[in-house]
Amino acid sequence: MAVPFRTSRRVEFVDTDVAGIAHFSNFFRWMESAEVEMLRSFGLSVKMVWQDQELGFPRVAAACDYLRPVTFEDLLDISVRVERVGTKSVTYAFEFAKDGEAVARGKVTAVCVRMHPDRSFESVELPAAVRARLEQGA
Amino acid sequence: MAVPFRTSRRVEFVDTDVAGIAHFSNFFRWMESAEVEMLRSFGLSVKMVWQDQELGFPRVAAACDYLRPVTFEDLLDISVRVERVGTKSVTYAFEFAKDGEAVARGKVTAVCVRMHPDRSFESVELPAAVRARLEQGA
Amino acid sequence: MAVPFRTSRRVEFVDTDVAGIAHFSNFFRWMESAEVEMLRSFGLSVKMVWQDQELGFPRVAAACDYLRPVTFEDLLDISVRVERVGTKSVTYAFEFAKDGEAVARGKVTAVCVRMHPDRSFESVELPAAVRARLEQGA
Amino acid sequence: MAVPFRTSRRVEFVDTDVAGIAHFSNFFRWMESAEVEMLRSFGLSVKMVWQDQELGFPRVAAACDYLRPVTFEDLLDISVRVERVGTKSVTYAFEFAKDGEAVARGKVTAVCVRMHPDRSFESVELPAAVRARLEQGA
Repeated sequence: MAVPFRTSRRVEFVDTDVAGIAHFSNFFRWMESAEVEMLRSFGLSVKMVWQDQELGFPRVAAACDYLRPVTFEDLLDISVRVERVGTKSVTYAFEFAKDGEAVARGKVTAVCVRMHPDRSFESVELPAAVRARLEQGA
Repeated sequence: MAVPFRTSRRVEFVDTDVAGIAHFSNFFRWMESAEVEMLRSFGLSVKMVWQDQELGFPRVAAACDYLRPVTFEDLLDISVRVERVGTKSVTYAFEFAKDGEAVARGKVTAVCVRMHPDRSFESVELPAAVRARLEQGA
Repeated sequence: MAVPFRTSRRVEFVDTDVAGIAHFSNFFRWMESAEVEMLRSFGLSVKMVWQDQELGFPRVAAACDYLRPVTFEDLLDISVRVERVGTKSVTYAFEFAKDGEAVARGKVTAVCVRMHPDRSFESVELPAAVRARLEQGA
Repeated sequence: MAVPFRTSRRVEFVDTDVAGIAHFSNFFRWMESAEVEMLRSFGLSVKMVWQDQELGFPRVAAACDYLRPVTFEDLLDISVRVERVGTKSVTYAFEFAKDGEAVARGKVTAVCVRMHPDRSFESVELPAAVRARLEQGA
């Protein structure tokens, strides 16, 4: 198993809510952002031209468990791991920590699609070279 | 089993992304908003003063499965059901549909907390009258 | 001068921040949403196919003055007025009120563009029929 | 005049919209985030305890002019300058650039408030030491 990809992110003012904590929906944005950063380190993205085809990775499932609240200006350490590379999909597992303690854990599954010029899309098999790069993070 | 609470919502321009569809993270905001609307119909909220105590309902788990993409100006029908009322928590189940077809299904668990004046909070048992009202939606 | 278009909107939990009020950036989302609702009543949108051309209305300027804070579950009354229809642009003026008192006033200028198949775009003159419809709100 | 504070930020997938560009409302979030980063470098924040009082900086005006569209994965260079320090308020000026070309310019005015324990607040004069630190960025 590869070492997880690691990044960090500071909770912004706009991310907080009237309960004084970061709103739970932000963790889904943060997961995607960490995923994109990892993909960039692999020479990939969630929207890219690959051998003349435009590929995208819409999400088919997303989940998060919240262990501890975080708030404005907290610095979050985020780790991303490629949990499973399927024929047409990829599943990422995320852990968010603050000061060494886990605060949330999430999972996202995205499916590989080919974008048509009219912006419709259909799921396709992961190109072999994309799959090979994703497996670097597995 | 009660009839689910129903509401609707139109996808806004800001909700869309460069793939031409509503960003997956919005469904979590929409779930909370539909939950709040249902709670309001029960005389409750996710932030309320109840017998001189300030109660809140931070989320401990959230998940969503995406079946079909939706886009700008689509009108979504949302149903909310109280799936389980625990001692200190409540779980809601959501279905999003467009033109009669399911587009996403989600689930959220929130825990009842008492807010202290310094904005810290601790989980508490659901007050009996709150529980009774939540069970209207079960 | 036409009667302004009116709509309303309730402040959602996710719209609030740790200061206990609606985050100022939301007013820009709410302005666009009210604009789209007015345009819909005119048979227009901010993204539409018009005589076989795809038109869009990216913003070139946006401003808001905040008079009073608003918070979770507040019901906002929003009025929209077409302030100026230029050759290629349109300016909207917005007022947000709560319980009859103004809480914010904003202004947005959008320019009419033609979208090319590769997603690039260029500014174009407002089609005469679009202009005529916009002037209904002026 | 001081050298402006500089930071950078990459446009995220969630920031884009169906027109293929970053949604205009994000620039307001990015301005606040850059402001907070500058304030942090001065030992300040938009929410802080200062000599036993909780101070906040709600916005009373915000504006942005958009010169060029930006999109997913674009790297934005952001400069922040303290344009004016008033008795109770502070105005910041922002410039966003991509590859050395300006893409947007904005301005935000925030007022200094004292937060009461019940979360209400009232505007107060900027404490002298806060003012002195803000003037570092002027």
